[in-house]
Amino acid sequence: MEAKPKVNGGVKDGKQNRRMPAIHGPTNPMVTPLLTDLYQFTMAYAYWKAGKHKDRAVFDLYFRRNPFGGEYTVFAGLEECIRFIANFKLSKEDIAFIRECLSPTCEDGFFEYLGGIDCSDVEVYAIAEGSVVFPKVPLMRIEGPVAVVQLLETPFVNLINFASLVTTNAARHRFVAGKNKLLLEFGLRRAQGPDGGVGASRYCYMGGFDATSNCAAGKLFGIPLRGTHSHAFVSSFTGPDEITEKSLKSQDGSKVCKDFVSLTQTWLSKLKRLSSSEGVFGETNQSELAAFISYALAFPKNFLALVDTYDVMRSGVPNFCAVALALNDMGYRAKGIRLDSGDLAYLSCETRKFFQTIEKEFQIPDFGNTGITASNDLNEETLDALNKQGHEVDSFGIGTNLVTCFAQPALGCVFKLVEINNQPRIKLSEDVSKVSIPCKKRSYRLYGKEGYALVDIMSGENEPPPKAGQRILCRHPFNESKRAYVVPQLVEDLIKCYWPGSAEKEREELPTLVEIRDHCMKQLEQMRTDHMRRLNPTPYKVSVSTKLYEFIHFLWLNEAPVGELQ
Amino acid sequence: MEAKPKVNGGVKDGKQNRRMPAIHGPTNPMVTPLLTDLYQFTMAYAYWKAGKHKDRAVFDLYFRRNPFGGEYTVFAGLEECIRFIANFKLSKEDIAFIRECLSPTCEDGFFEYLGGIDCSDVEVYAIAEGSVVFPKVPLMRIEGPVAVVQLLETPFVNLINFASLVTTNAARHRFVAGKNKLLLEFGLRRAQGPDGGVGASRYCYMGGFDATSNCAAGKLFGIPLRGTHSHAFVSSFTGPDEITEKSLKSQDGSKVCKDFVSLTQTWLSKLKRLSSSEGVFGETNQSELAAFISYALAFPKNFLALVDTYDVMRSGVPNFCAVALALNDMGYRAKGIRLDSGDLAYLSCETRKFFQTIEKEFQIPDFGNTGITASNDLNEETLDALNKQGHEVDSFGIGTNLVTCFAQPALGCVFKLVEINNQPRIKLSEDVSKVSIPCKKRSYRLYGKEGYALVDIMSGENEPPPKAGQRILCRHPFNESKRAYVVPQLVEDLIKCYWPGSAEKEREELPTLVEIRDHCMKQLEQMRTDHMRRLNPTPYKVSVSTKLYEFIHFLWLNEAPVGELQ
Repeated sequence: MEAKPKVNGGVKDGKQNRRMPAIHGPTNPMVTPLLTDLYQFTMAYAYWKAGKHKDRAVFDLYFRRNPFGGEYTVFAGLEECIRFIANFKLSKEDIAFIRECLSPTCEDGFFEYLGGIDCSDVEVYAIAEGSVVFPKVPLMRIEGPVAVVQLLETPFVNLINFASLVTTNAARHRFVAGKNKLLLEFGLRRAQGPDGGVGASRYCYMGGFDATSNCAAGKLFGIPLRGTHSHAFVSSFTGPDEITEKSLKSQDGSKVCKDFVSLTQTWLSKLKRLSSSEGVFGETNQSELAAFISYALAFPKNFLALVDTYDVMRSGVPNFCAVALALNDMGYRAKGIRLDSGDLAYLSCETRKFFQTIEKEFQIPDFGNTGITASNDLNEETLDALNKQGHEVDSFGIGTNLVTCFAQPALGCVFKLVEINNQPRIKLSEDVSKVSIPCKKRSYRLYGKEGYALVDIMSGENEPPPKAGQRILCRHPFNESKRAYVVPQLVEDLIKCYWPGSAEKEREELPTLVEIRDHCMKQLEQMRTDHMRRLNPTPYKVSVSTKLYEFIHFLWLNEAPVGELQ
Repeated sequence: MEAKPKVNGGVKDGKQNRRMPAIHGPTNPMVTPLLTDLYQFTMAYAYWKAGKHKDRAVFDLYFRRNPFGGEYTVFAGLEECIRFIANFKLSKEDIAFIRECLSPTCEDGFFEYLGGIDCSDVEVYAIAEGSVVFPKVPLMRIEGPVAVVQLLETPFVNLINFASLVTTNAARHRFVAGKNKLLLEFGLRRAQGPDGGVGASRYCYMGGFDATSNCAAGKLFGIPLRGTHSHAFVSSFTGPDEITEKSLKSQDGSKVCKDFVSLTQTWLSKLKRLSSSEGVFGETNQSELAAFISYALAFPKNFLALVDTYDVMRSGVPNFCAVALALNDMGYRAKGIRLDSGDLAYLSCETRKFFQTIEKEFQIPDFGNTGITASNDLNEETLDALNKQGHEVDSFGIGTNLVTCFAQPALGCVFKLVEINNQPRIKLSEDVSKVSIPCKKRSYRLYGKEGYALVDIMSGENEPPPKAGQRILCRHPFNESKRAYVVPQLVEDLIKCYWPGSAEKEREELPTLVEIRDHCMKQLEQMRTDHMRRLNPTPYKVSVSTKLYEFIHFLWLNEAPVGELQ
């Protein structure tokens, strides 16, 4: 058994000589060097056998299409990749396992080589986590000995794919819901496995959600937690007779109500005089009433009730209001209700009217603004429909569609060789959309007068960078006729060094989750809204320099075999 | 820091007095009691505060609709649930965190109570893992103190949902592919996070796949591993000149070929006389040729080449065949090719023809049957389309669509209170489909003459079980007019005890993955194929006994509030 090494990646010879903090291992302890495809090991052996394993390779990690029919993606998962390589080490047990899996003819020297591998000789360049990103532009560039970098392919792509997908999904839900609504992620139970849930909670927060129901994510990442009670809590009670401890001290401690149950029941009879559009209500459900009273006695400052266990307008809302009014007598302000089924637009509006009637009828200031949370299979489309119908929901709890990315559950990130031993490489394909862009590249984002992003441009590593105020020809990488001149007001160099860092290339520090979230919110604001809209958004342009364009096509012709028709 | 307790759940007083093996903790160490929704803790506090936390509750875990537009589901994830409760313990750190999250007014006694909780007082009954299951029938019944069982809700539902979904998806892919094809799961890089990938590998194997590319899953669960090389391997070479060590010993060790590169090149020129439908080929790609030769030198017994990096018919297939024929001279038999883009039906047929031509032309016995593996965004629909077009693929590598369950990325398992303190409970809803079936129940599967399953029936715990040969009235739980008489040939009691077990109710042992897989394959064969087909399958019937039917409707009327129209 080996203890997990904690690498301290201090930039010892850095300009400022500042110490970088130690980099912890991956959040999920299952992320080990064995979390990779077998072919990474068979290839490593073949490279080793051919004496090529130390050839210096450059790989790009990128995706080919934005998800959800949209025109943007948010990049996430970088921190986990850095944590992974900072602690990369194959254990003896891992190596013994790989030896079993490969051919018995594989030579011992290879397994000795595997045992010595770490990522000190690997360099990782990336766009900042939480940035808005686009197809074909490398999110990460990974350089190092070809056999080692291949081993990183599967875990890196795994760690980036879902993280970026679900962050993007959260950002899209936020865009439709608007800035002023509270967005809660409630997806743990429906997520694709335990860390499908934990990851979703983290990345939904990154993409603009306000809180999660997931305690593990709250503890691991400091995300605000929310939660009250379920239908089972409501139906676990039979009636108010069950409640034995009935007293409640007032908010300011000045008085005690000895029978909070009676106080609630008194309010319930007063409420019977009021009517909702469902008619006046008759007898409300007594198990529900008992559950609400019990919850209020346990959390008088945080009373929020799920009102659809039996019937929203005939039972849940009147029961809630009776308890809320009793709490009000004791100086507490109820938080609100949660609707989890039925016509959320209609029920939220009816409930709001009922709250407002109470405010007016009983002179309870601000009761009309009591909170309304809605849940139940919400997604971008239903949020949009609710907006169009008109609703009175303040806060949305979103689960399944958000965390499993129901509308498109996978992002197609790939990891392609673009250079080896300083030789640019291209991957052709029967599908033109799968042709890779060769060369070690740099990427820039060009901004226009109003501060919005205009276009991303890639160029060869050694080309001079584009300059603000200078006219630049931006070319489509594969389509000769698509090109445009741009005079940027601002040029942003997208790729920074994240591992290992050196005197010349200082390593970026890993920001906190809140910092990444803030960066993400800022980046989203720098996008023109026509790129962001839910339906038929305008494509954002991704281009290459003329020099790179010409080189791509030279290499393509060079590598593609010429047929001979008979 | 507390060491993870290993519970030995020995049935000490059991009839046979046999020792049960210790139950290990969950596969993913992130599965802890904090992997739950905050409201489970707020409810636990409210139960505790009301003195109700030890009330004996019964919850059912079930789903409401089969996934993928199908009429069946495979139940999976049970072992992980049992591992979770067998080791359930809140650490001091967990409790301190929960204390921070709840209201500062929460009393100390509650946190002391939390610290003492384990699952020795919880009972779990379930259908066997790997069984075919249907909507509304409880997959698991969990009994115990209400506050404790609530804490289990989120992790249980999380562990069952994705496991059952992806097992079902694998079974559906197997159904379309047919029994004779080799099915490989290649999804790790596209899965929803690290254990989305590991879980998918495990459960796809359970549902009928033959192997995975995921090394971690291979090590954890003993699943056969597969993998050869990627496009990057092919394009990392520049040409055969790179290859310095060119010798290859023959399979039987009797001779050595000193220049395997030349041998391959000789075969390549011989092949140029043959033509495919793409015309005769000219110069094949030299970097590809070098890569294939290197791979063959590393793995002469396992030579399988990815042939679409440059051009399948003009380069990849001829290069593969040249290497395969050179290997054949040395007594090795090449495994085959992998196609990863383009028209798989057409390319596989063309490749097969080319293999057959070689067999005939050069008298190489069985060369025509060299393996063809296909990958590239395969799913049920594309497999079906390939079958209709006609293809020559022997083996399918399936990734994204399989492991993310692209066609429907979530299953809607729920966890509903059905009884508390021996009082049956019902959950009504604005949506009738969300009404729960009350009571502690038993479930049976009734089989007909031909050995196929006919109908599932639920009854109250204390009703006499249905008997083979007896006429039984099976009623739809909610629709009065839907009912049918059945005379079963065989009655299967679906629910068994999985935790903790006692003298009266012996605990089922947890079977191995291979045993579960075998059970699953057998179960799938006991279903009529009209329930299984991909499009418009016949619904399988789920019913209740007359007594249970009547009780549901009595309770429903009893709990639903009566309105008063104005």
